Amino acid sequence: MSAPSTSSPHYRRIAESLRLTLSSGALRAGDRMISARKLAEREHVSLPTALEALRCLEAEGLIVARPRSGYYIRQISQPQRAEPARSPAGPVPVTLSAVARSLFSSAEARLVPLGAALPDPAWLPGEALQRALHSAGRRLDAHGQSYSLPPGRADLRSKIAARAAQWGARFGADDLIITAGATQALRLALRAVCQPGDVVAIEQPAYFGTLLLLEDLGLKALEIPTDPAEGLLLEPLADAIRCHRPAAVLASPTVQNPLGASMPVARKQELVALLEEAGIPLIEDDVYGDLVGDGQRPPACKAFDQSGNVIYCSSLSKTLAPGWRIGWIAAGRYYTQVLQARMAGEWAGAPLLEAATSEMLASGDYDRHLRRLKRRIAEGIAAVVAQVGASFPPGTRVNVPAAGFLLWVELPPQVNALEVHRRALARGIGVSPGPLFSPGAELSHFLRLNCANEPTPRLLNAVEQIGALCHELAVFTPDSPATR
Amino acid sequence: MSAPSTSSPHYRRIAESLRLTLSSGALRAGDRMISARKLAEREHVSLPTALEALRCLEAEGLIVARPRSGYYIRQISQPQRAEPARSPAGPVPVTLSAVARSLFSSAEARLVPLGAALPDPAWLPGEALQRALHSAGRRLDAHGQSYSLPPGRADLRSKIAARAAQWGARFGADDLIITAGATQALRLALRAVCQPGDVVAIEQPAYFGTLLLLEDLGLKALEIPTDPAEGLLLEPLADAIRCHRPAAVLASPTVQNPLGASMPVARKQELVALLEEAGIPLIEDDVYGDLVGDGQRPPACKAFDQSGNVIYCSSLSKTLAPGWRIGWIAAGRYYTQVLQARMAGEWAGAPLLEAATSEMLASGDYDRHLRRLKRRIAEGIAAVVAQVGASFPPGTRVNVPAAGFLLWVELPPQVNALEVHRRALARGIGVSPGPLFSPGAELSHFLRLNCANEPTPRLLNAVEQIGALCHELAVFTPDSPATR
Repeated sequence: MSAPSTSSPHYRRIAESLRLTLSSGALRAGDRMISARKLAEREHVSLPTALEALRCLEAEGLIVARPRSGYYIRQISQPQRAEPARSPAGPVPVTLSAVARSLFSSAEARLVPLGAALPDPAWLPGEALQRALHSAGRRLDAHGQSYSLPPGRADLRSKIAARAAQWGARFGADDLIITAGATQALRLALRAVCQPGDVVAIEQPAYFGTLLLLEDLGLKALEIPTDPAEGLLLEPLADAIRCHRPAAVLASPTVQNPLGASMPVARKQELVALLEEAGIPLIEDDVYGDLVGDGQRPPACKAFDQSGNVIYCSSLSKTLAPGWRIGWIAAGRYYTQVLQARMAGEWAGAPLLEAATSEMLASGDYDRHLRRLKRRIAEGIAAVVAQVGASFPPGTRVNVPAAGFLLWVELPPQVNALEVHRRALARGIGVSPGPLFSPGAELSHFLRLNCANEPTPRLLNAVEQIGALCHELAVFTPDSPATR
Repeated sequence: MSAPSTSSPHYRRIAESLRLTLSSGALRAGDRMISARKLAEREHVSLPTALEALRCLEAEGLIVARPRSGYYIRQISQPQRAEPARSPAGPVPVTLSAVARSLFSSAEARLVPLGAALPDPAWLPGEALQRALHSAGRRLDAHGQSYSLPPGRADLRSKIAARAAQWGARFGADDLIITAGATQALRLALRAVCQPGDVVAIEQPAYFGTLLLLEDLGLKALEIPTDPAEGLLLEPLADAIRCHRPAAVLASPTVQNPLGASMPVARKQELVALLEEAGIPLIEDDVYGDLVGDGQRPPACKAFDQSGNVIYCSSLSKTLAPGWRIGWIAAGRYYTQVLQARMAGEWAGAPLLEAATSEMLASGDYDRHLRRLKRRIAEGIAAVVAQVGASFPPGTRVNVPAAGFLLWVELPPQVNALEVHRRALARGIGVSPGPLFSPGAELSHFLRLNCANEPTPRLLNAVEQIGALCHELAVFTPDSPATR
């Protein structure tokens, strides 16, 4: 593992010490902050350096400038909300596994599947997949049951590279390593560029699988405000980079989970340029990219990567066959580290599944399936959105995503999503509560609904039941923790 | 992750400082060591504590006691050899990935497969596997292509637990977690009980996949002498535990890789008791266990585990279908940590492959295959052993294993196995050179040969060619690094 190392400049050290002072509670909201001049004297630095430190705190929303009067301390104990315009307060450790565990442990039961981000099994091309397996099995004979060694079968890597070339990807078959799903790809990417204790900038809200990875690897999360429509916001990211110097940025610029946001192409280019200039690698999670658009999908950030600074991760788990565990990573200049880490870990793949996937991509079966899948998803989204509109309490807001199959629902502030989750579970209904999607903010009145389901009466009835639960929790009930 | 934590007692600290003095070169072989009395004075400890420190160094072979005269320094710069009776010099970091990489990168080419420890694909039950896949695919329908969430499908876990109960395993379906092969199981086990920097006691020689895992996780290896027939030696292990307090012991008590050794049942019991008493978890790698015996296989250590201190790891990669990546872990008292780590990592499995494996185990297809496989392996071993006898230079010694399919060959001391590996590779032949199997000792004149191959003329000719290479390297050749 290697991380870009720079010695922390003075202003960042000073900002950190000011942050400590603020968090100690010695100063109150409305108190005047030390002036830049005095700070410069006290810390034996230049005036611009002192100003830079104060601007860091300003960018984090900890202090506010008043014209001709200096900086004042903001209300810092106010409840945090997922406001895309607000910058986060700094890196935080991730400790989500308890909540996530309760979610996973219940996942095997036959819940109404509004929780996990998975397409309806009935929407997967079961027959085509079986046909491909059978044909690959005949072709490979017993070799199909043996190991596929890193970087994975060349036929599959060529097919993936050829598809990616259509949206402008700058990688070939030799730049790809097949992985056990995108989660392994993301883990390998993080291992390649971060050391335990490092800070990783992520979107807020972010996919909880990513957050669990950070927790597992001992990395801190630096949450960057993310727009419900246009994705990761670059100005707060630039501020955060200046103040906290993350070891990597991990983002899903195309169809973000849970928001469904996609960055406009020009902003993707800007993001790549910003991180290239800062010398900070971008880890790009693109698992939903194939679900965008009617014809050609938009480019991923990797299309604009000229130096190998973008580590691109994707899979077929959201679009073709989750259980086949076929993912891949185009690690750019980190190829060697990633390959080594793949060898040292769960190094072998399943040649049968790799060969069958390769056939699905080559035969056009995958493309045919994808067109049908996108139509079905659009119907699924429309049906759930309509039902939410009809059943949820006033004050509920939804971001209808332009692509992907996840619906991010903002409930009235007094509704506790963890309680909704608990009560829905008791009724055999799965939902993903907001707190899973942020290690720092509470997101306590948000829900994510999986809309990649046939909108059967049972499904819509489940959405209606969730709405009824939200109504219950929106009014005062003495036994509900949501009402405190 | 949690590790058993004990503060290092005085004698261990003193032994460590003496080791540093010895390694500094300030004292020479034959010099008299400081007396226990003087050591006690100097370090302000009791005489028994000083003696205990000296005994640690004696157990490590660094000093020798002469009656009524005290301790003297042994020849410590002597070339290290894989002598089972000799104790190792202490924990060492693992830095094998460069050698291993050269091995792996060549593995995809069509080498004569004497290198990797894999059964001949032609020996795998290809038709039965395809049948099971097809039947599972029909039964699960599209659900077979979705995720299998931790701990993995209940039907497979019950079948594995039922088989293990036959040799006395003390775990049920609910104690098992399905993993992506045994490598992932071992990684999860190490993550559950070790922190980076911790010491793990392993066999010498040890499977290089395990060593790569230690390297990847930043763990130090403490090599324990291992007998070619009876496996891990308990007296040196007990000494090593006393002196170095490893966080875990990782071993393959049944069919060790590369030696093929199996511990007698009574010694397995002793090992379990020793580690239970010391409060150090045993991580048991049992991937070759099913290859032992004509009828019922002998018990693994896990059979004697009454407290959950043994973390049992196995898979079907060596016996049924390497590429299906079906492994499992019975983590005893570490179940929760392991399950959490599995969730945070490459958390999903392939339900189709899990269900098909379950069918293979239930139908008797696996047992039928196993009987045939063991016969074929015995023939493969016999053929390679005969060819080695006919073709290798005088001074070559082999351990003919009682079970498993690996042959550990000791070449004449002047033959450099890495050079044999390099030259064999150039001839399209794979072998595994000794240095891969130890981070501390050189093992430079050992080779491991995979004998799970149909003994075709091509295969036996390859063995003959390796013999010829060894002959070349056994005599003086100016360009060979083996002759220095």
